[in-house]
Amino acid sequence: MFAPDPRLEISSIFVTDLALCQARLQADARWPWIVLIPRREGVRELEDLAAHDLETLTREILLAGRAVRAMAGAADRKIDKLNVGALGNVVAQLHIHVVGRRRDDPAWPGPVWGFGAPVDYALEKLDAMSALARATLQI
Amino acid sequence: MFAPDPRLEISSIFVTDLALCQARLQADARWPWIVLIPRREGVRELEDLAAHDLETLTREILLAGRAVRAMAGAADRKIDKLNVGALGNVVAQLHIHVVGRRRDDPAWPGPVWGFGAPVDYALEKLDAMSALARATLQI
Repeated sequence: MFAPDPRLEISSIFVTDLALCQARLQADARWPWIVLIPRREGVRELEDLAAHDLETLTREILLAGRAVRAMAGAADRKIDKLNVGALGNVVAQLHIHVVGRRRDDPAWPGPVWGFGAPVDYALEKLDAMSALARATLQI
Repeated sequence: MFAPDPRLEISSIFVTDLALCQARLQADARWPWIVLIPRREGVRELEDLAAHDLETLTREILLAGRAVRAMAGAADRKIDKLNVGALGNVVAQLHIHVVGRRRDDPAWPGPVWGFGAPVDYALEKLDAMSALARATLQI
């Protein structure tokens, strides 16, 4: 049975279940950031997914990019570049990060992973971002 | 007309042209590392690719993963995790990194991007890795 790794659960909040992935909002106010976790058991690498799941994943990555752009737009902080990454060095369960980057963000042009400490969202902001992400992903 | 960004050219060597991407070997002996550059002009984000190109890209990312595993195997250094990333904060032209990671590598569990300085390959080693990558990618 699929369940997100507890370390992913603790660092992000549930947004919605897509056809393949559970979409989660990374609990870090520094970046608009969606984490996609394919709802398949025991999957660590992209190659572990069936071909049709890989196609779905690609579509969901594009969707997550749109959600990240919408989140940035709502804060009037247009992004300069999407960063998409499947690393899994800390949590091996396959998960894909889709992150909105700006030239003036604290880690630019370096990667966000492992950079500094997460900054908490204000609670109402977290709700608003999560609702916006959900609305964009469910189009 | 497609041409790889000069900053990608200088940090990697040509391996082969696949159906969609130019595959290049990152000139950094610290990691088995393939860079895929879709041979399309003016493409910065995954969403800029046509749907059939995205499907091809997915297949070529899996192929590159196999090549990276082969390169690591040849050095008797089995990898623990593949890292796949499309960042583009430094070079905006769309390019996808496929990197073989080991628990005892210098940047583990952090990302490789922006970590320390590249280590040159010995010339004969570079040739051997490139030939091996080419053979694996062209299967």
